Amino acid sequence: MSDNFTREITPLLMEWRRTLHQKPELGFMEYYTTYRIGKELEKLGFTIHVGVDALESASRMGVPDDLLLTEQENKALGWGVEETWMEKMRGGNTGVVATWDTEKKGEHLGLRFDIDALPIKESDTNDHFPSKQGFRSQEEGVMHACGHDGHTAIGLGVAHFIAQYKDTLTGRYTLIFQPAEEGGRGAKAITDKGWLNDIDQFYTGHIGINPYPVGTIAATTRGFLASTKLNVHFKGVASHAGMKPEEGKNALLAAATAATQLYAIPRHSGGPTRINVGKMTAGSGRNIIPETSYMEIETRGETKEINRYVLQEAKRILHASAAMHDVEVTMEFVGETEEIECDDSLVPFITQACEISTYVTEVLPYAKVSGSEDASFMTNKVQKNGGRATYMLFGTELPYGHHHPSFDYQEAVISIAVDAYIHILKGGMSHE
Amino acid sequence: MSDNFTREITPLLMEWRRTLHQKPELGFMEYYTTYRIGKELEKLGFTIHVGVDALESASRMGVPDDLLLTEQENKALGWGVEETWMEKMRGGNTGVVATWDTEKKGEHLGLRFDIDALPIKESDTNDHFPSKQGFRSQEEGVMHACGHDGHTAIGLGVAHFIAQYKDTLTGRYTLIFQPAEEGGRGAKAITDKGWLNDIDQFYTGHIGINPYPVGTIAATTRGFLASTKLNVHFKGVASHAGMKPEEGKNALLAAATAATQLYAIPRHSGGPTRINVGKMTAGSGRNIIPETSYMEIETRGETKEINRYVLQEAKRILHASAAMHDVEVTMEFVGETEEIECDDSLVPFITQACEISTYVTEVLPYAKVSGSEDASFMTNKVQKNGGRATYMLFGTELPYGHHHPSFDYQEAVISIAVDAYIHILKGGMSHE
Amino acid sequence: MSDNFTREITPLLMEWRRTLHQKPELGFMEYYTTYRIGKELEKLGFTIHVGVDALESASRMGVPDDLLLTEQENKALGWGVEETWMEKMRGGNTGVVATWDTEKKGEHLGLRFDIDALPIKESDTNDHFPSKQGFRSQEEGVMHACGHDGHTAIGLGVAHFIAQYKDTLTGRYTLIFQPAEEGGRGAKAITDKGWLNDIDQFYTGHIGINPYPVGTIAATTRGFLASTKLNVHFKGVASHAGMKPEEGKNALLAAATAATQLYAIPRHSGGPTRINVGKMTAGSGRNIIPETSYMEIETRGETKEINRYVLQEAKRILHASAAMHDVEVTMEFVGETEEIECDDSLVPFITQACEISTYVTEVLPYAKVSGSEDASFMTNKVQKNGGRATYMLFGTELPYGHHHPSFDYQEAVISIAVDAYIHILKGGMSHE
Amino acid sequence: MSDNFTREITPLLMEWRRTLHQKPELGFMEYYTTYRIGKELEKLGFTIHVGVDALESASRMGVPDDLLLTEQENKALGWGVEETWMEKMRGGNTGVVATWDTEKKGEHLGLRFDIDALPIKESDTNDHFPSKQGFRSQEEGVMHACGHDGHTAIGLGVAHFIAQYKDTLTGRYTLIFQPAEEGGRGAKAITDKGWLNDIDQFYTGHIGINPYPVGTIAATTRGFLASTKLNVHFKGVASHAGMKPEEGKNALLAAATAATQLYAIPRHSGGPTRINVGKMTAGSGRNIIPETSYMEIETRGETKEINRYVLQEAKRILHASAAMHDVEVTMEFVGETEEIECDDSLVPFITQACEISTYVTEVLPYAKVSGSEDASFMTNKVQKNGGRATYMLFGTELPYGHHHPSFDYQEAVISIAVDAYIHILKGGMSHE
Repeated sequence: MSDNFTREITPLLMEWRRTLHQKPELGFMEYYTTYRIGKELEKLGFTIHVGVDALESASRMGVPDDLLLTEQENKALGWGVEETWMEKMRGGNTGVVATWDTEKKGEHLGLRFDIDALPIKESDTNDHFPSKQGFRSQEEGVMHACGHDGHTAIGLGVAHFIAQYKDTLTGRYTLIFQPAEEGGRGAKAITDKGWLNDIDQFYTGHIGINPYPVGTIAATTRGFLASTKLNVHFKGVASHAGMKPEEGKNALLAAATAATQLYAIPRHSGGPTRINVGKMTAGSGRNIIPETSYMEIETRGETKEINRYVLQEAKRILHASAAMHDVEVTMEFVGETEEIECDDSLVPFITQACEISTYVTEVLPYAKVSGSEDASFMTNKVQKNGGRATYMLFGTELPYGHHHPSFDYQEAVISIAVDAYIHILKGGMSHE
Repeated sequence: MSDNFTREITPLLMEWRRTLHQKPELGFMEYYTTYRIGKELEKLGFTIHVGVDALESASRMGVPDDLLLTEQENKALGWGVEETWMEKMRGGNTGVVATWDTEKKGEHLGLRFDIDALPIKESDTNDHFPSKQGFRSQEEGVMHACGHDGHTAIGLGVAHFIAQYKDTLTGRYTLIFQPAEEGGRGAKAITDKGWLNDIDQFYTGHIGINPYPVGTIAATTRGFLASTKLNVHFKGVASHAGMKPEEGKNALLAAATAATQLYAIPRHSGGPTRINVGKMTAGSGRNIIPETSYMEIETRGETKEINRYVLQEAKRILHASAAMHDVEVTMEFVGETEEIECDDSLVPFITQACEISTYVTEVLPYAKVSGSEDASFMTNKVQKNGGRATYMLFGTELPYGHHHPSFDYQEAVISIAVDAYIHILKGGMSHE
Repeated sequence: MSDNFTREITPLLMEWRRTLHQKPELGFMEYYTTYRIGKELEKLGFTIHVGVDALESASRMGVPDDLLLTEQENKALGWGVEETWMEKMRGGNTGVVATWDTEKKGEHLGLRFDIDALPIKESDTNDHFPSKQGFRSQEEGVMHACGHDGHTAIGLGVAHFIAQYKDTLTGRYTLIFQPAEEGGRGAKAITDKGWLNDIDQFYTGHIGINPYPVGTIAATTRGFLASTKLNVHFKGVASHAGMKPEEGKNALLAAATAATQLYAIPRHSGGPTRINVGKMTAGSGRNIIPETSYMEIETRGETKEINRYVLQEAKRILHASAAMHDVEVTMEFVGETEEIECDDSLVPFITQACEISTYVTEVLPYAKVSGSEDASFMTNKVQKNGGRATYMLFGTELPYGHHHPSFDYQEAVISIAVDAYIHILKGGMSHE
Repeated sequence: MSDNFTREITPLLMEWRRTLHQKPELGFMEYYTTYRIGKELEKLGFTIHVGVDALESASRMGVPDDLLLTEQENKALGWGVEETWMEKMRGGNTGVVATWDTEKKGEHLGLRFDIDALPIKESDTNDHFPSKQGFRSQEEGVMHACGHDGHTAIGLGVAHFIAQYKDTLTGRYTLIFQPAEEGGRGAKAITDKGWLNDIDQFYTGHIGINPYPVGTIAATTRGFLASTKLNVHFKGVASHAGMKPEEGKNALLAAATAATQLYAIPRHSGGPTRINVGKMTAGSGRNIIPETSYMEIETRGETKEINRYVLQEAKRILHASAAMHDVEVTMEFVGETEEIECDDSLVPFITQACEISTYVTEVLPYAKVSGSEDASFMTNKVQKNGGRATYMLFGTELPYGHHHPSFDYQEAVISIAVDAYIHILKGGMSHE
């Protein structure tokens, strides 16, 4: 049945993807995106949870400041978001959780799709497919440069399948449309709301990442590191560098000291670690002892414990660097991910389920990846409660890498992912 | 005679000052300012030298880029600058040198007034005098926050005196209206043009600096340090900090290493030194090994030789920091000053000359200052050729320090400075 | 047959071990040790290769200076080493290679035993077994604190077996008694002489390391890292720190800068790396800008390539640190090891061969270790030429760790290792 | 009268100097030296104060450890020091204060002579005067390399003068033979005992320092900086650098971090500062995360206040460096000096007093020096209580600098200094 379904829904998938691509929204500001998803799911008959009903507001990290939120809220209202919807989302409470209970005995499956865009100015050259096809971002400086427009379309496709085949399905379904994946800021808030507490099987994944041909999927991934993202502010005392150098408290030097010391955090014998100071700004004028400085840092470790070791070292170093130059330091934790350890037991199941798909041409048992993913909060919660979880890849050629102004992917991967998921859903049932 | 003169010209001084205050222009972009000064001097009968006739174009440092120059040129044309004047100035060749020859035997006196403004947004609160009086800067983000509007008015006042009393004066007069004093960028270009080569007495100075009461002036200053201003760019290689840390070449670390090492340049037994990294920016994203970094640095030393020692150490450290992280470094020298050693023999002369002034209430033999001044290129050139030179201070209360958004001074200091200078001019003659 | 052999030779093993323990000699100074081994092997009928016949003299690293060599040579002569033997060894050419050809078809087996001691003062308390039993080091400050006395005894035991059972054996045997394992200084010199070029099976190993009970052995090891050991000297210029700070060139700061930067060498995505500055000395007096400094450094990497990456970074940093402080740097490479990758195909063979040993109670397929071993040069050469190689562990309780003044092991492990090796030798034959 | 006196005592001065030169003793271990001085002064009729009667034992800094003290005490007893004298000195309470009261009205004059030697191995080449003349140090590794043997001889010469001319003198005299000047460790202990509390005129000085010809003296000096000498110990945790890098706490890195940061203490606008890390040692073995490190540091400032600023910065940096690497730090203050500001009013007096000396050929009003001197505690105490004080120089050629193994001076300077002092004493009287 699914082949027909996938073929028939493909035009809709394309339309959703392209519409969203033109209205990209940054993390915790996906007002319009949330609204569009929610309306669609509502129409299909799902039970909808939006805003503070979907996520634990206090668990969000790196929420934009009020000015930016308000600006985007007004813009979204202008784009047609209803005030009743906005009320629930206002203040950066975006994202939707949709549930469906077949009221038949069966497992509880969770699927997660991330929906946010990036602060990147999209290429406008003619060789960039979205530009050529006329669906380039209409928001200058914001871009779906990581494929979350496709992820959202995939989620809506799966939702349509559930609604359409509800009578033949068993168990329960929870579809999570998560805000603010970029920077690892949104998944924890949804996890803390409890949505993952009784999931039996949890599926999420990404298009692209590794350069597999379209049609190839990976049943699991290995290598997502636990990570913490923090912003650091040093505050010292300005002074005229020529006249009163001894009266300054040098925030630039505190940051510089911290940077050189952070990279020297001892290696850990338990597994790989990473540390990066990706950005630094300090000082105001050539002639003034710098009063302030700012750094964006990321720590990583093979496991949550190893990342915690790196983070703890980093925190001590940051405090010591402040003490070294007699300045104050404040740290803001703006993102966090855990490691992901997919359940290998899902590999044969996924492989077998997709065998009859005419879209999926090959299932790799696992893909080696790197980087970090806040879906880790969800996979770990599911597994902690006895469920199984995986993070899959859906192959597509990538003319340019992720987060690039010319990032693009083969749209066919959307249908392939939908087809893979619905075969997994059907396999999951027959699996009973 | 001068008392009457000063009293009578005071309304004009106020008008010039307030007009210029409303149209502040940054260094090497003083198109309108130069035009206004030039037209006034021309009217008085001075011989006028503008643009490449006034300065050695290639000796300028820290010239803004073409885009900014063009923008300001167009703006100045809009403000009424004549095209024939603009032709001479185009490309950042601002400033005027005005000469007057009495054709009577006598000394050659040089006076210098700096005319540029600062990239500071002027306060718009009602307790800020220029705001209250309606002559706040009309150029958002540009401000006469160091009193050069007053300096220019003083220069025009002195010019009026010379024109008016030409028959009673002897010798020659060269009035220099110098661009781009801020950052130590303009004086060398005028000096290199030869204007200081045969000056017998050279006078320049500053209003404010030390908090002397209005009416008090200092005949000389001690403590201006030689300095060099340089901008440094490090260029490395970006890499994903999680996936390929070993492939990056970290420009942020090169800058951080340089910063911590620069402040440790050994003290010099020959006299005070200073070093400051006033500004640093580096990196693009949290997760990327930073590809670029930028620093604004200033070195200082009690003498040119000691500053050269600091500069040489700094250059070696910058190169070594680049080598340390395998990145490239480029340095741009954007400003330079020398030390100033005023001629003490001018103290009794100035003191005596001003004794009969009803504006100047007290003459201090010297003021202890700090900081740096590119007038040093001029004083040193004059002295090298056998002339005498001084850098004076003209007292005024300052509610806020120089370079502050609320910087302001007592306008009375303008008349006082004019009166001091014209007594010196007259004294200079009788001194013959 | 071997059980009886091992039981019967055990008293001799103990005697050898204890005799050698009392006369410990540092790397490349094992004159007496080499002589004792050589005489024993000669007596047994082996073909003996000593001194420059055994190793490539120029490939040695970290050879002690002539004064120390001469002193030890004289001491060894005093201990009875014959002048004809000393002639071959003089100048630090220690170690023996003994070969035996059964002149029957069969594989060529190589075994390696390291023979050097450490610069550690042995404990003289009564709870230290060698002290209590009266065979404590007679050389104050030199000690067999890593069990190479036992290794040598094991080698002699195996040699006795070969000589005694020569008629039942096939193929060829090469026994390598290697000098200067500590610091990774001797194995390369023997390897470069060509002894490993046509070995079919290569065995070496260590007693202790992991705390396995006596009787347990590990057929292979995993985790020995490639490493480089270097000594670094910075040479600057002294100056009175109070009077002429600007005239000094600070070698202490060069070393301190290098140290802080070395630990920050970027992690490598290809595998674990290590860096350590284990020792630093600098400067002469409180009041003098330090003229000299010295550091002992070790780099490590999972593979030779990754270690080379670390080493290359370290070298650049050392040069840049010297440039930073305008001092000179010289580096001395005093030791090197490669990674070891044991042949897993030897595991079932060793396991089976030792099954009938009454000494070996358990064979672990592999032991996880860390650290580095210059036997790596040998294993890699054997494998490169098509042979198979392993590095084994022989379990013993260790009251204190290796390189500790109270280091000791259960002497029974010596007989167990001999018994393991002779079963392997016999198994190797039947294996034909 | 003095000419004859000085001429007559010169042979004795030479004898004292050469005897002491052969028996140099380090600071707080001048047992033999103190005894010889004391016996001589006692013989002359001075009231003698030795050991804890001369100094405040608890105020001493950098006292050698007990083992060293005991060793030197035994050696001194072997050299003939009487047990009754040793009793008073035992534990490092060396030095003598000798007082003389003429019981005639007059000023109270204080003179100070330092008596300790340095841990330097004296040159034994024939071109080194003491070697050639047979009075080279008999204590290998200890040497009078700063002329304190001469200072002591000068003091004894002055004492003889006082005793001999007691009837013609007025007022009171306090002669201080101070231990442990090197490292600034002894003067404070004598000052704290109260000896300087009511001195009217205080004289001390140094032979050499500046290369004035013999016969030239300087009445005062300018430039001795306040200073603090501290030893720093970092204590971390050792760990195998390959196996468990994350378990170490790196004391070497703490010291290296501190060193690079200390030199970057901001310059002070109030006057010159200095900082030096003269010595560093850290770590034990190449492969071990260093557990301990040690540094010898000196801070300096033009005044006590400015030195205190540097010291306070240094302390914060040392604590922060320890925190940076999670290790412990302890600081030991082993020496301290203050700035010296000689009384200019003594210049004409000294000049006039020495005018009639046939030994002193020229009196410079002041000598510019650098470095630090713990006599500062004495001069400052005298001045604080209303007295006047100076630190003089006595010219001599120096073939090699102070603290050099070949340090030597023209012995004639001893007589010259004695003659200068006795003319000052006589002038002081007539000054009444």
